[in-house]
Amino acid sequence: MASVKSPLNDAALKAAGDALQGALIDLIDLALVAKQAHWNLTGRNFKVVHEHLDEIVALARSGQDDVAERAVAIGANPDGRVRTVADRTTIPQLEAGYLADDKVVAAITDILAQIIARFRERIEATDEPDQVTQDLLIGITAELEKQHWMFQAQT
Amino acid sequence: MASVKSPLNDAALKAAGDALQGALIDLIDLALVAKQAHWNLTGRNFKVVHEHLDEIVALARSGQDDVAERAVAIGANPDGRVRTVADRTTIPQLEAGYLADDKVVAAITDILAQIIARFRERIEATDEPDQVTQDLLIGITAELEKQHWMFQAQT
Amino acid sequence: MASVKSPLNDAALKAAGDALQGALIDLIDLALVAKQAHWNLTGRNFKVVHEHLDEIVALARSGQDDVAERAVAIGANPDGRVRTVADRTTIPQLEAGYLADDKVVAAITDILAQIIARFRERIEATDEPDQVTQDLLIGITAELEKQHWMFQAQT
Amino acid sequence: MASVKSPLNDAALKAAGDALQGALIDLIDLALVAKQAHWNLTGRNFKVVHEHLDEIVALARSGQDDVAERAVAIGANPDGRVRTVADRTTIPQLEAGYLADDKVVAAITDILAQIIARFRERIEATDEPDQVTQDLLIGITAELEKQHWMFQAQT
Amino acid sequence: MASVKSPLNDAALKAAGDALQGALIDLIDLALVAKQAHWNLTGRNFKVVHEHLDEIVALARSGQDDVAERAVAIGANPDGRVRTVADRTTIPQLEAGYLADDKVVAAITDILAQIIARFRERIEATDEPDQVTQDLLIGITAELEKQHWMFQAQT
Amino acid sequence: MASVKSPLNDAALKAAGDALQGALIDLIDLALVAKQAHWNLTGRNFKVVHEHLDEIVALARSGQDDVAERAVAIGANPDGRVRTVADRTTIPQLEAGYLADDKVVAAITDILAQIIARFRERIEATDEPDQVTQDLLIGITAELEKQHWMFQAQT
Amino acid sequence: MASVKSPLNDAALKAAGDALQGALIDLIDLALVAKQAHWNLTGRNFKVVHEHLDEIVALARSGQDDVAERAVAIGANPDGRVRTVADRTTIPQLEAGYLADDKVVAAITDILAQIIARFRERIEATDEPDQVTQDLLIGITAELEKQHWMFQAQT
Amino acid sequence: MASVKSPLNDAALKAAGDALQGALIDLIDLALVAKQAHWNLTGRNFKVVHEHLDEIVALARSGQDDVAERAVAIGANPDGRVRTVADRTTIPQLEAGYLADDKVVAAITDILAQIIARFRERIEATDEPDQVTQDLLIGITAELEKQHWMFQAQT
Amino acid sequence: MASVKSPLNDAALKAAGDALQGALIDLIDLALVAKQAHWNLTGRNFKVVHEHLDEIVALARSGQDDVAERAVAIGANPDGRVRTVADRTTIPQLEAGYLADDKVVAAITDILAQIIARFRERIEATDEPDQVTQDLLIGITAELEKQHWMFQAQT
Amino acid sequence: MASVKSPLNDAALKAAGDALQGALIDLIDLALVAKQAHWNLTGRNFKVVHEHLDEIVALARSGQDDVAERAVAIGANPDGRVRTVADRTTIPQLEAGYLADDKVVAAITDILAQIIARFRERIEATDEPDQVTQDLLIGITAELEKQHWMFQAQT
Amino acid sequence: MASVKSPLNDAALKAAGDALQGALIDLIDLALVAKQAHWNLTGRNFKVVHEHLDEIVALARSGQDDVAERAVAIGANPDGRVRTVADRTTIPQLEAGYLADDKVVAAITDILAQIIARFRERIEATDEPDQVTQDLLIGITAELEKQHWMFQAQT
Amino acid sequence: MASVKSPLNDAALKAAGDALQGALIDLIDLALVAKQAHWNLTGRNFKVVHEHLDEIVALARSGQDDVAERAVAIGANPDGRVRTVADRTTIPQLEAGYLADDKVVAAITDILAQIIARFRERIEATDEPDQVTQDLLIGITAELEKQHWMFQAQT
Repeated sequence: MASVKSPLNDAALKAAGDALQGALIDLIDLALVAKQAHWNLTGRNFKVVHEHLDEIVALARSGQDDVAERAVAIGANPDGRVRTVADRTTIPQLEAGYLADDKVVAAITDILAQIIARFRERIEATDEPDQVTQDLLIGITAELEKQHWMFQAQT
Repeated sequence: MASVKSPLNDAALKAAGDALQGALIDLIDLALVAKQAHWNLTGRNFKVVHEHLDEIVALARSGQDDVAERAVAIGANPDGRVRTVADRTTIPQLEAGYLADDKVVAAITDILAQIIARFRERIEATDEPDQVTQDLLIGITAELEKQHWMFQAQT
Repeated sequence: MASVKSPLNDAALKAAGDALQGALIDLIDLALVAKQAHWNLTGRNFKVVHEHLDEIVALARSGQDDVAERAVAIGANPDGRVRTVADRTTIPQLEAGYLADDKVVAAITDILAQIIARFRERIEATDEPDQVTQDLLIGITAELEKQHWMFQAQT
Repeated sequence: MASVKSPLNDAALKAAGDALQGALIDLIDLALVAKQAHWNLTGRNFKVVHEHLDEIVALARSGQDDVAERAVAIGANPDGRVRTVADRTTIPQLEAGYLADDKVVAAITDILAQIIARFRERIEATDEPDQVTQDLLIGITAELEKQHWMFQAQT
Repeated sequence: MASVKSPLNDAALKAAGDALQGALIDLIDLALVAKQAHWNLTGRNFKVVHEHLDEIVALARSGQDDVAERAVAIGANPDGRVRTVADRTTIPQLEAGYLADDKVVAAITDILAQIIARFRERIEATDEPDQVTQDLLIGITAELEKQHWMFQAQT
Repeated sequence: MASVKSPLNDAALKAAGDALQGALIDLIDLALVAKQAHWNLTGRNFKVVHEHLDEIVALARSGQDDVAERAVAIGANPDGRVRTVADRTTIPQLEAGYLADDKVVAAITDILAQIIARFRERIEATDEPDQVTQDLLIGITAELEKQHWMFQAQT
Repeated sequence: MASVKSPLNDAALKAAGDALQGALIDLIDLALVAKQAHWNLTGRNFKVVHEHLDEIVALARSGQDDVAERAVAIGANPDGRVRTVADRTTIPQLEAGYLADDKVVAAITDILAQIIARFRERIEATDEPDQVTQDLLIGITAELEKQHWMFQAQT
Repeated sequence: MASVKSPLNDAALKAAGDALQGALIDLIDLALVAKQAHWNLTGRNFKVVHEHLDEIVALARSGQDDVAERAVAIGANPDGRVRTVADRTTIPQLEAGYLADDKVVAAITDILAQIIARFRERIEATDEPDQVTQDLLIGITAELEKQHWMFQAQT
Repeated sequence: MASVKSPLNDAALKAAGDALQGALIDLIDLALVAKQAHWNLTGRNFKVVHEHLDEIVALARSGQDDVAERAVAIGANPDGRVRTVADRTTIPQLEAGYLADDKVVAAITDILAQIIARFRERIEATDEPDQVTQDLLIGITAELEKQHWMFQAQT
Repeated sequence: MASVKSPLNDAALKAAGDALQGALIDLIDLALVAKQAHWNLTGRNFKVVHEHLDEIVALARSGQDDVAERAVAIGANPDGRVRTVADRTTIPQLEAGYLADDKVVAAITDILAQIIARFRERIEATDEPDQVTQDLLIGITAELEKQHWMFQAQT
Repeated sequence: MASVKSPLNDAALKAAGDALQGALIDLIDLALVAKQAHWNLTGRNFKVVHEHLDEIVALARSGQDDVAERAVAIGANPDGRVRTVADRTTIPQLEAGYLADDKVVAAITDILAQIIARFRERIEATDEPDQVTQDLLIGITAELEKQHWMFQAQT
Repeated sequence: MASVKSPLNDAALKAAGDALQGALIDLIDLALVAKQAHWNLTGRNFKVVHEHLDEIVALARSGQDDVAERAVAIGANPDGRVRTVADRTTIPQLEAGYLADDKVVAAITDILAQIIARFRERIEATDEPDQVTQDLLIGITAELEKQHWMFQAQT
């Protein structure tokens, strides 16, 4: 079975592929973390935060598809298997059991800040190798930063 | 922070909660596996199988929400964190890299058959403790069995 | 060509398969009978009954698909060919030519009552073998009984 | 005027009819109570609770229609007149005048818990007489328990 | 807990509040009466009247919300609790059990005529105190009179 | 009960009525055949052919309604009862049991070719008697020929 | 101001233009007659006939636009002014005041039969001069004949 | 056949009924005039004015229904027959044949101004007798005056 | 360039025009103030208040269009230029920088109360001169008072 | 690779195929011409003509698909390649660069007139060989003639 | 109350914040200017330009939200208060009173050209500091330049 | 007739204009090629590839509009006339007659690869002259590369 022929040279493919794979890990775990909080949430602001977390899930899931399909489109195989994500994620994990709303808001704010920092490095890293990939990462970063502001504003 | 007061007694809560937590692990990993195949697929039937896999993702994701929210509704905390899923899943994992369409169809058929067998045990296990939970599991099983037939018919 | 591997054992498959095949015959002929009346209707209440009959058709057609696809999903081949339906249906047949609205309402009320009685036997018969199939039959029975009431209320 | 002919025998009809009539009283008063709170609410969480209460109203109203139409479909006349509901309801009534949001959340949590307990008895009571009615009650109970969790999580 | 500050003076508030509370009682009971008939209806015109009654329900329910929210917007607490409605309603109540379609049409025609007469008094009574409230009542009256005509035309 | 007064003279009515009745038989059985294949299909192209067959069902069902209602509109009673269709259909019947996708494609191609030949005769036969009926038959033939091409192109 | 240049020769334009102008008069007055009945209707079947008449209005109005725009597209000025319609219409006029539902159904049946007869003459008359115009008239006739059947079936 | 019982006394009914009948004549002819212009229009601004005229038609047609149904709702029979409209309309009639766009804009501006003047008299005349009717007329006048401005602005 | 000819006399035009211009200033600045708060908001209730403020913006913007187009429809030129609004607005202005949610809720409650008082004066002022304009102002006031209640209920 | 088996004999296929291929060339180039004008347009009526041209594009594109798919459905291969269209089109070509709106309207009017003349010949040519093809061509001609009128009316 | 923590360093924040604040002033005043023209417009092309201006309003309003929310997302407080906009805007202001359509088209063309020039400077200025902000500004500029072309094409 | 005034200087305009004109030729011919294959396709995967090709057509057509309108927005006249496209296209042309599905998939994969290479050069070429144009080209390239992957994956 032949691999997809890349429109990029090897070095560019490597750089862009790494950036996209890193983004994929971040976005898959972000969706899982946000769902975990969505389900186990408690507190006065339950209803609002419960629904707000699903906006994060929707953003993370559509972002996953975009970065993974971009990866394979340039000839790099994305790896979104559960073991891979569990091993490579650097997102701070939530406790088991009930989660108080204010702690969730603080945790998500912090997680988004960390992910954004990594996305900004990836924007940097793809500037030369592939502006098409960079443009995709810029678009996702804009959405992540908007959500970061909204969670931070509630703290 | 007080826990949610369950409409079930302790034994029933334990039985139903275990069934739901098991279902949650299955459905989260099913979505991840189906996405992995969706992205890395190749072969003459690429387009059809690529889109068919997203039906599995949609089914698995809406099922996740239903079982996790049912769990917390009866007072059991669902755990869908990536490490938990990676450690407990019994779904056979896909290879990294490109995946041929016929092998994907065979793998998904097999995975669905295994998950269905576990769901049928969970239906059994919740018959006494909680018919509301059982009814939810029956509904998801019906959809899983329909997809199992559709994938099997292509082999 | 390999057959679909059933999630049920042989006895359960036989029982569920028979119930579904019987339901399929009833629902195919119900749709044909209701269309025949829909087309040849006359009388003061023509417009209302004409449109009401199409609700029966819609219910019967979606029910057909559900029971036939459930049959094949458990490994039983549904048979909805015209000769099979003509030979096995036990629904009382309508006269050729124009049909007066009050007679149609009475006939459909009677036909629905007979079909419902058979569906209740099928619910009985699938309780042990396959609760997933039973759940589907319960759902269709609920709709048939609702329509039965509505037609009966007009008599 | 002839009554609707029931698909059930007399004892089954009595049992199912009683369960449905009880459910109807609960659901009509639930809708009225939720609207009363929706209108007279005050407090920091006004907007969220105000809108959340309308989800209860929507659930209660669609449930009313389902149980009342199920009752008449099996040949039992539902009674949803205001005097009947006022006399038979066992839901604790709200005070007149403004209602503080946290007290409303607590009251609705409590009311839902009581209604759920009665619905679980009705599921029990209809298991033998009529599985179609039981299935309907299971479905409504699932939704009530989901809302119960969501209100309880805010306390 | 502070009450809502009214844009009206005390006398105007009293007059407008009374008109709105009266309208609320009428509209809540109208919805309950129309649903009771919707469920227990029989007769040749069952289907048409059954559906027509739900137009009354929809009108009564949206009217309830409008008058109750107008009341609280001007600083008067609406009271729509079941005991209040049962005690204060002057709408002639329906019999229990099956209801023949022609009798239902006559009863609804009569009930609407009585409600309209009271709404016209309320339009009168709010002309000085609050034209905003009056405008709302005029709008609901127009719809009630349209439905009154449609029911009367069938008698 | 008076029959519908035809806008056509007796000979024209006979010719147009016969053409429409023949078309009705073809279209009812085409829908049943396509559903039978839709349910019992297997093979590599299962998903595509499974869905393609439902396009045939949709076309056949909307065509049924059009020809049957055209028949009664000109004063000829359509007969779509199951016994009538079983006795008069000339469509080659499918085997019971699983059906391989390539054989289904070949069978549907052949069946459509036969039906089209009969529709072209009916277009011929209605040219003089009733251009309105002819126009309807031309429209359905265009759709049948489009589907015939699409199935044939897959062989 | 220059007139629209016709794609037809003078004789064909005259024939097609006359047919279209005649159709326009019929369809404008049909809409007015149906609205008059829609408003002044009484009787047991009020609701159904009231709504059915609006289907006639919708058909007549969309037909008006089609024939008038076809006329101007071939270079003939349509005349749909009220005086022209009043002077040239041959549709039997309704009485002033209330109209009983059965009489309305009979009257509309009769009016449609007369209009259909004229449309069939117009189909005849345009066969040679302009098949595009003829095709439009055939389409409208099919709809008129369908409505004629539906009204006649209620008598 | 009994007439509709009016919520108004005789004098009020007379005044409101006259106002509504006058409005009906204006709105029916306005729709016919606007359609006549819509069809026979020519000039540089054809497309814009052609579409703008259909906004007038839509407004006039929905207004017709509102005033006629209001008339019968208060017990006055609306008369919208073609002869009645032709005899009583005071709207200046358009020439036959092609109509230049600037002349159409001027004519519609003038016609709207005349109709508005009559509607303002009707608002005056219904102030005492029936505020519900008055409110309807105010609403239509607001729309007519908005269109009057838009046509006038183009002159 | 000719001005729009008014349906009102000079005094009425002056009174109605002044009322509408005043309303325009209020509604343009209300939209700007609400957006300023929407953007700079912080606090525990950020998400709910952030979205609630956009309901104010939507109401203010659709109100702007309605009053400005009403003004020009009666022949008065609305002035919504930024300098005009800045000079004439009497709405208390927000601070620059972040705004705490509870202070925003209090400020909007106060601003709405002031605007409502002015709208009630405008309703008064247009009663004689132009009931069409008055009806528009009554409609906007109803919406402003509903929002005023909702913001006040949160304080 | 086998060719599609035609429902027509060879002579009929040749005639119908030629007519459809000719129509295809016309419609592909019509879309290209209309887009060229859509993009390079200038003048006072820019906005209206710019949007009107896109209606031509939509009509031409849907027509292309219909004639090309009809061609292949009867067994004739359509040829819509750019070289074929460039060589065979007889549509007068537009100048490069900016195009004044009045000249564009005149050019499109002229182009439509020429295409209509050829379509009328094709309707003639397919009358014997294939009425299904003819019916399709009649439908497209009707739309072309409607657009021709609308462009001509602006000149 | 803590300020939002920026993902940018101080210098980048200053540069990006200034660009966004400048864009906000431009877009708020653009919306106000376009509305002023939308309301006071006159002339032959009134309808088209009136509607075209609302496209500008929609673009300006969605742009406002995007730039203001981007500002706060990076930790800079946007200032869109009326006094701020009035003092800082450099857009040439429209005259009071009626505005002729050709003058409006020329004015909007000119205003858009000036705003575009400033946006291009802002794209320049944000290239280093923040590519996410730059990407947003590029997107808005593309839309502004498209509208600039469309207005310019009408001059 | 004045040309559109460009926001770019002459050199930038030349570079961006050339890139856009080249893109236009590619996208127009891509749509024509994809349609040619869409119509003449045969083979086992006919249905899937037939529909997949229409995604290419949709992408190419929306891309055409975007690049052509961008060209004129910066003051460069796009040329999309059939002769221009035929002369300048470098896309390898398809054979006449039937086209086997696997050969079509290979051909489209190859064509997309060539077009992508040219688009990447255009992204390069517009980096200095006009980032707004570049951003548009990046967006289209992302979509082309996604489709390229999907076609390549089927080979």
